[in-house]
Amino acid sequence: MNVLWIFAHPEPRSLGGSLRDEGLRALRAQGADVRESDLYAMKWKPVVDADDFGRAASPDRLVVGSTSKNAFETGELGEDIRAEHGKLAWADAVIIQFPLWWYGMPAILKGWFDRVFVKGFAYGVQRPDGRTARYGEGALAGKRAMVVLTAGAPEATIGPRGVNGDIGDLLFPLQHGTLWYAGMSVLPPLTICGADRFSPEQFEAAAASLRARLRTLATQDPIPFRPQNEGDYDDDLILRDDLAPGQNGLGVHLAR
Amino acid sequence: MNVLWIFAHPEPRSLGGSLRDEGLRALRAQGADVRESDLYAMKWKPVVDADDFGRAASPDRLVVGSTSKNAFETGELGEDIRAEHGKLAWADAVIIQFPLWWYGMPAILKGWFDRVFVKGFAYGVQRPDGRTARYGEGALAGKRAMVVLTAGAPEATIGPRGVNGDIGDLLFPLQHGTLWYAGMSVLPPLTICGADRFSPEQFEAAAASLRARLRTLATQDPIPFRPQNEGDYDDDLILRDDLAPGQNGLGVHLAR
Repeated sequence: MNVLWIFAHPEPRSLGGSLRDEGLRALRAQGADVRESDLYAMKWKPVVDADDFGRAASPDRLVVGSTSKNAFETGELGEDIRAEHGKLAWADAVIIQFPLWWYGMPAILKGWFDRVFVKGFAYGVQRPDGRTARYGEGALAGKRAMVVLTAGAPEATIGPRGVNGDIGDLLFPLQHGTLWYAGMSVLPPLTICGADRFSPEQFEAAAASLRARLRTLATQDPIPFRPQNEGDYDDDLILRDDLAPGQNGLGVHLAR
Repeated sequence: MNVLWIFAHPEPRSLGGSLRDEGLRALRAQGADVRESDLYAMKWKPVVDADDFGRAASPDRLVVGSTSKNAFETGELGEDIRAEHGKLAWADAVIIQFPLWWYGMPAILKGWFDRVFVKGFAYGVQRPDGRTARYGEGALAGKRAMVVLTAGAPEATIGPRGVNGDIGDLLFPLQHGTLWYAGMSVLPPLTICGADRFSPEQFEAAAASLRARLRTLATQDPIPFRPQNEGDYDDDLILRDDLAPGQNGLGVHLAR
């Protein structure tokens, strides 16, 4: 199994860094091939701008979507972006590891998605029947993804009725709106809470949880997000009335 | 009224740029004082690293939370961060305008919050009774915030049962987890949909909506997010059983 590990923490000697080291060791021990995108170590450029698109960028006005598609199709995308496309093509599974900052990804990681998930690659791809290939279909279909998260908050506060909001809902823009959008099967996240005050025993417990999750990376059931194009949504892409009837909230997009 | 307009689009000649121009004109015409943080024009650095914290950063190991708090308290934070603190202190209201990228903020804007909302300023502040001052209390209490968004998606697809998830839920990490967390009163967002295919008539309608929202910036009712410390949450910060009973989902954090 080929695994790409994306890591977005400024300090390798952090709890996150130690868990990353542990995860890479565990994967190799179980026979996986591993590549890494350590975004801080790579000094990853997080900001989308005209420099990303080479000669495909008009000097007059930057239209991000169409320009990125043109640059993708003509091979004009920046070399750092093309390198990440190569890693994604190679990978069977992708681990996305980060500390939860303001209930989302650190900017350097958001900028990895902003710059790598260009139009024509991760969105804006038509199926033969004219519908858009997304949410369960697309360039990354068949690949698996798992979020590994460290958070300062106590676990209950990111639970279903915790003050910070449920972690599954907080991660919806990433897990559903980005990974599943591009076709990936998204495994339940591994969330390590209380990250600011960790004892050696707590670290060993967290490392054991991580190893257990990595052992079942190829087999575990993904989050049952609904596919867009298999009948659950109508032609306006609204969920059918008879599914999760009368309900709102992000949970309606899960097939139970 | 003092208004800070934060703008995070790479192209000033975009729909977003035109709406920003229109918004600034309208505010000035109604007598407001306006300052701007045009993040692309400022070449805003989005990545948190040791350089942000001057002499407060240990050469051995960067612990972001405590180091940022120390740098904040000793005046060691980077000059660009301190300038934004000055603008926030000055502002009565903050407009946060961006194109929706992967159902969230462009990296440059996420990195504005990551770097400006440091510990001791926007989080990690204790009240005299030992509870943490957040969600309705904190450094920015009394100030108003409004998100102005352009999105390629059709409006219904970011509605309550649209395939992309409801926009209020997608914005929860920003509106609740960041702005309300730091104490701001958050007005309902203005979302301009179908941004990729805009006619002059559509632009005029969008500009009119924006002007209307800016006219009531000082008076409009904010989103009724629940305060943390006024009895709705228990001591573990879980919503009381008798509020939104039996319900989950981010909507439980709204007082109806």
